[in-house]
Amino acid sequence: MKLMAVTDNLHSISELASKIIQIKDVVDFVQIREKTKSVQEIISLLQLLEDGGVKKEKIIINDRLDIALLMNIPNVHLPEYGLPVKRVKEHFPHLRIGRSVHSLEKAKEAQRDGVDYVLYGHCFETDSKKGKVPNGIQPIIDMKKELKIPVYAIGGITINKIKPLKQVKADGIAVMSGIFSAKEPYALAQQFYEAINNENKL
Amino acid sequence: MKLMAVTDNLHSISELASKIIQIKDVVDFVQIREKTKSVQEIISLLQLLEDGGVKKEKIIINDRLDIALLMNIPNVHLPEYGLPVKRVKEHFPHLRIGRSVHSLEKAKEAQRDGVDYVLYGHCFETDSKKGKVPNGIQPIIDMKKELKIPVYAIGGITINKIKPLKQVKADGIAVMSGIFSAKEPYALAQQFYEAINNENKL
Repeated sequence: MKLMAVTDNLHSISELASKIIQIKDVVDFVQIREKTKSVQEIISLLQLLEDGGVKKEKIIINDRLDIALLMNIPNVHLPEYGLPVKRVKEHFPHLRIGRSVHSLEKAKEAQRDGVDYVLYGHCFETDSKKGKVPNGIQPIIDMKKELKIPVYAIGGITINKIKPLKQVKADGIAVMSGIFSAKEPYALAQQFYEAINNENKL
Repeated sequence: MKLMAVTDNLHSISELASKIIQIKDVVDFVQIREKTKSVQEIISLLQLLEDGGVKKEKIIINDRLDIALLMNIPNVHLPEYGLPVKRVKEHFPHLRIGRSVHSLEKAKEAQRDGVDYVLYGHCFETDSKKGKVPNGIQPIIDMKKELKIPVYAIGGITINKIKPLKQVKADGIAVMSGIFSAKEPYALAQQFYEAINNENKL
């Protein structure tokens, strides 16, 4: 099971860079999802991460394909109303592309369009989707039967949710506030890492 | 003198498409600047424009280089805190790139970075920059002495501003609300077109 940290759009670029550099060795991916930052701020962040030794292969850019292309970041995560996967794959076949989905149907469609992974959510209640009923983790069982691409789970994932997510065979988890809103992002990321690996051993 | 219409982010995609298709033969460029629309909406708009016979060469995409690349639009306008011109030129030398500037210094910097035109403003008082003192049109005189690339003027441009703008040798004008907020966008665009061409004859 892989661990993706997703930025929470609540910190300055320098705070964020420091947090990401702290956790870089215990996460598989960091998705940069800073919707209210300017393009120049995101580019500055990427330069800070490069200086801090964060590998480009670990970075996923949310939405802005152009930033990924200019900064040689090989991974892009496309939101539901974002760029069309098919066109992106046709133009830039070297990129690894993820897509957010909320149902099996949308996940199958995303696979047909050529995505490399889907990010399914939201699984559990979470402050970032307050008042919205979670979709639960049962659909992951069907996705794992019908899809060939990895399925990542997102939304309200805490340490004690890793076991049930392993049981439905999720390939990875994506954690936002659980890491970036924590006082000690490294300690939390480390806990996720250990829980995932203990689970792996079982 | 060229005429660029800049969309005002105040209409639905279908209204906007209809307005642009109406004015397509009397403007040199249409800059798509719809900051609150989703990427999918902008792509839908571009498809409507294609169906309506608007040439891609006339379309300029604001900010989103990725949309321009995927939709084969050859012109991109980069805002002040947008993508770095130099990197964009290095990666995609075939694109025509414009940049917004507010001073001679920034215009010279933009030229050094390789832009194909600058859009200087705001020239006159305008509702879209309410309460902000305009920069005037005098700097255009120096820009035209020191720059090789075309200088477009933007901000509060009405028909009676075309004469003074010709006098300072602006290469083009960019009009937003003057066209898109008008009840009859075609009539207004036509007036600008005629005023520009009458001036040309003088």
